[in-house]
Amino acid sequence: VTSTPPDPRHPEISTRLTARFKLRYPIINAPMAGAAGGRLAAAVSRAGALGLIGGGYGDRAWIDAQFDQAGDAGVGCGLITWALERSPEALEAVLERQPRALLLSFGDPRPFAARIAAAGVPLICQVHNRADATLAIDAGADVIVAQGSDAGGHGDLRRGTFTLVPEIADLLAVRAPNTLLCAAGGVADGRGLAAAIALGADGVLVGSRLWATCEAAVSDAMHAAAIGANGDGTLRTSVMDIVRGLDWPARFTARVLHNRFTQTWHGREPDLRSRREQVSRDWIDGWAAGDPERANTFVGEAVGLIDTIDPAAAIIERMGAQAASILGRD
Amino acid sequence: VTSTPPDPRHPEISTRLTARFKLRYPIINAPMAGAAGGRLAAAVSRAGALGLIGGGYGDRAWIDAQFDQAGDAGVGCGLITWALERSPEALEAVLERQPRALLLSFGDPRPFAARIAAAGVPLICQVHNRADATLAIDAGADVIVAQGSDAGGHGDLRRGTFTLVPEIADLLAVRAPNTLLCAAGGVADGRGLAAAIALGADGVLVGSRLWATCEAAVSDAMHAAAIGANGDGTLRTSVMDIVRGLDWPARFTARVLHNRFTQTWHGREPDLRSRREQVSRDWIDGWAAGDPERANTFVGEAVGLIDTIDPAAAIIERMGAQAASILGRD
Repeated sequence: VTSTPPDPRHPEISTRLTARFKLRYPIINAPMAGAAGGRLAAAVSRAGALGLIGGGYGDRAWIDAQFDQAGDAGVGCGLITWALERSPEALEAVLERQPRALLLSFGDPRPFAARIAAAGVPLICQVHNRADATLAIDAGADVIVAQGSDAGGHGDLRRGTFTLVPEIADLLAVRAPNTLLCAAGGVADGRGLAAAIALGADGVLVGSRLWATCEAAVSDAMHAAAIGANGDGTLRTSVMDIVRGLDWPARFTARVLHNRFTQTWHGREPDLRSRREQVSRDWIDGWAAGDPERANTFVGEAVGLIDTIDPAAAIIERMGAQAASILGRD
Repeated sequence: VTSTPPDPRHPEISTRLTARFKLRYPIINAPMAGAAGGRLAAAVSRAGALGLIGGGYGDRAWIDAQFDQAGDAGVGCGLITWALERSPEALEAVLERQPRALLLSFGDPRPFAARIAAAGVPLICQVHNRADATLAIDAGADVIVAQGSDAGGHGDLRRGTFTLVPEIADLLAVRAPNTLLCAAGGVADGRGLAAAIALGADGVLVGSRLWATCEAAVSDAMHAAAIGANGDGTLRTSVMDIVRGLDWPARFTARVLHNRFTQTWHGREPDLRSRREQVSRDWIDGWAAGDPERANTFVGEAVGLIDTIDPAAAIIERMGAQAASILGRD
C-alpha cells in the first residue's frame, strides 16, 4: 500500500477518509468498467487519492491484467454485486490481489461482507437510496458511497446527489457513526468536492472527470464527443444493456450521451429486444472501434463541466486546491 | 421595500444576492402555488430573506389578497410562464402591486421581459437546463434560478441540482457575468446553502423546507405526512395535473409524496384521462380537505431532511448560521 505523506505545496483537505486510507486527497475514482483499468487506478493512487480498478462483471483475466499493470501503486477494485451473485468466484480472484479496498455496487452486499472482512479488505458500498444504505450498514461497510442520478454510467434515476448525500449523512450519524460517506454523481471539480463536504460527506467518488483523462481506457473519439457535449446532452436508458444482453435489474439504467443509437432505440425497447441479434453486431463493433455514434459514451451530467482531457494527477491536485479555497482552508 | 441591515447576532453570508436585494440571508422562498401565500412571503422577507408569493396560474383575486396580507413586508411574486402566455393580464395585476421581484418559471420568459423591465421590477427566471438558461439570459434576467430534479412540485426530471448549478455558473461567467445565480431543488438546511455557494451560486431558492413552516398554507395532515416520509418516498408524476385538467407541457412533472392516489394512477395515465371526470371529484375534495392520501403532498427529495414544522424565521436563521460555519465564515 502506498502511503502518501502531506505535500506542503498543496493545501490540505483532511477528512476522515484521508485519515482512514492515508490519502492526500479525499478522492476515489469510480471503478468504471472498461475505462478504469490498472493505468488509471495507479495514476489516481500515485497522485495521493484512492485508485480503484473497474472490475465490472468479474472477468478474471482482465482484472488480473489490470492489477499487474497497476504494479505497486496500491489500488482497490470495484465489482457489480448482482453479477457477483452469479459468479462468486470473481470475489476470490480480487481478494487474492490484496486490494486496498473493495467496492460493491448494484445489489445487496450482505452475502459477501463476511468474506471481505475476513480478508482484511475495507468494504466500500455504493448505494442509490436510503433503503440501500440500511443494507450497507447491516453489511458493516467501512465507507458508503451515496450516488445520485446525476452520475454517468449505471445508476438509479430516483435520487439526486444534492439531497441523497445529506440524508445518508444523517442516517449514518445515528446508525453507524464510524462509517464514512462519499458523494458520487456529478463531482467534477473543486466546487463539487467542496459541496460534497459541505453536504456532510468525508470525500467523493469521481467518475466522468477521471474518465476524461489520459490514463483512462477511452477512445479519442469518445473523449472528443464528451468535450463537445454539455450537461443537457445525456439521458438515462437501458438500450445499451438490452443490445449487449446484460441482465441489469430494472431499477438501474445507464447515463450516456445522446447519439444516433439512443435516438433510434430509446423508447422502442420491445422492438430492440426482438431485433437484438442484428442490432448488437453493430453496437459491439462500434464499441470495439470506440465509435461514439454506434456505441455509447458513458458519462454523467458533469460532462457539461469538462472541457479538457488531462492527466489524472493534475485533475486531483486542482480539485483539492479549489475545494480548500472554497472551504476557507487554504 | 424592507431593507434589512446586518444583524450582529448572526454571522454573515454576504453574496451578490444579499447586496443586490439588501438581504441579510441569500435565501428566497420558492413561490409555491397555494402554499406560499402572503403570510409565508411576509415572514420570509421580515426574516431578512426575499419572500415571494406563489402566484401560480395567475388568479388575480387570490394574488391581490396575498399582497394585502403581506402588507409592507416587501415581497415579490412568482408566476407560471406558460399560464401567463394564456392569461397575460395576470402580469399587469402583479406589476400593479409593485413586487420586489417577479419570478417566471416553466416557459420562455422573453415575451414578458420588456414589460417587467419597464416597470422597474427585477426579473428572476427559473430554468431547468442549459438551453432554458440561454433564453433567460436573452430575456435579460437579473437572477437565474437553476432548479434540479430533486425539487418538489413542478420541475424537469432531466437535470440534477448538483451538476446543473455549476454548469449554469460557468455559462453566466462567460455570457452574463452580472446575472446572479440561485440554486433550487434540495436546499433544506445550512449544508445545502453552503453547498450551493460552493457550486457557484449567489444564493438559494428554498421550497420544501419553507413549505414545512407554521406560515405556509398547508394542512396539518400534509405536514404530518411529510414529517413521516424520507427522501425515498417521492416520485415525479403528472397524475395530479391530469386529474385537475391542467395542461402542463409534457417535460414538466411534479414531485410529490407517494400515496394511495399515485399508487393507483401513476403508470396508468391513459386510463386516468378517460376516467378523469369521476376521479377528479375525489382529488379536488381531498385537496380542499388537505388530505394527503386523496390529494397530493407537493414536496421534494429534501423531505428526508425535514423533521419539524418551524417558524420560517427560525429556519432561515439556522440555515445562515450553519452555512457560515461550514464555509469558514463564522
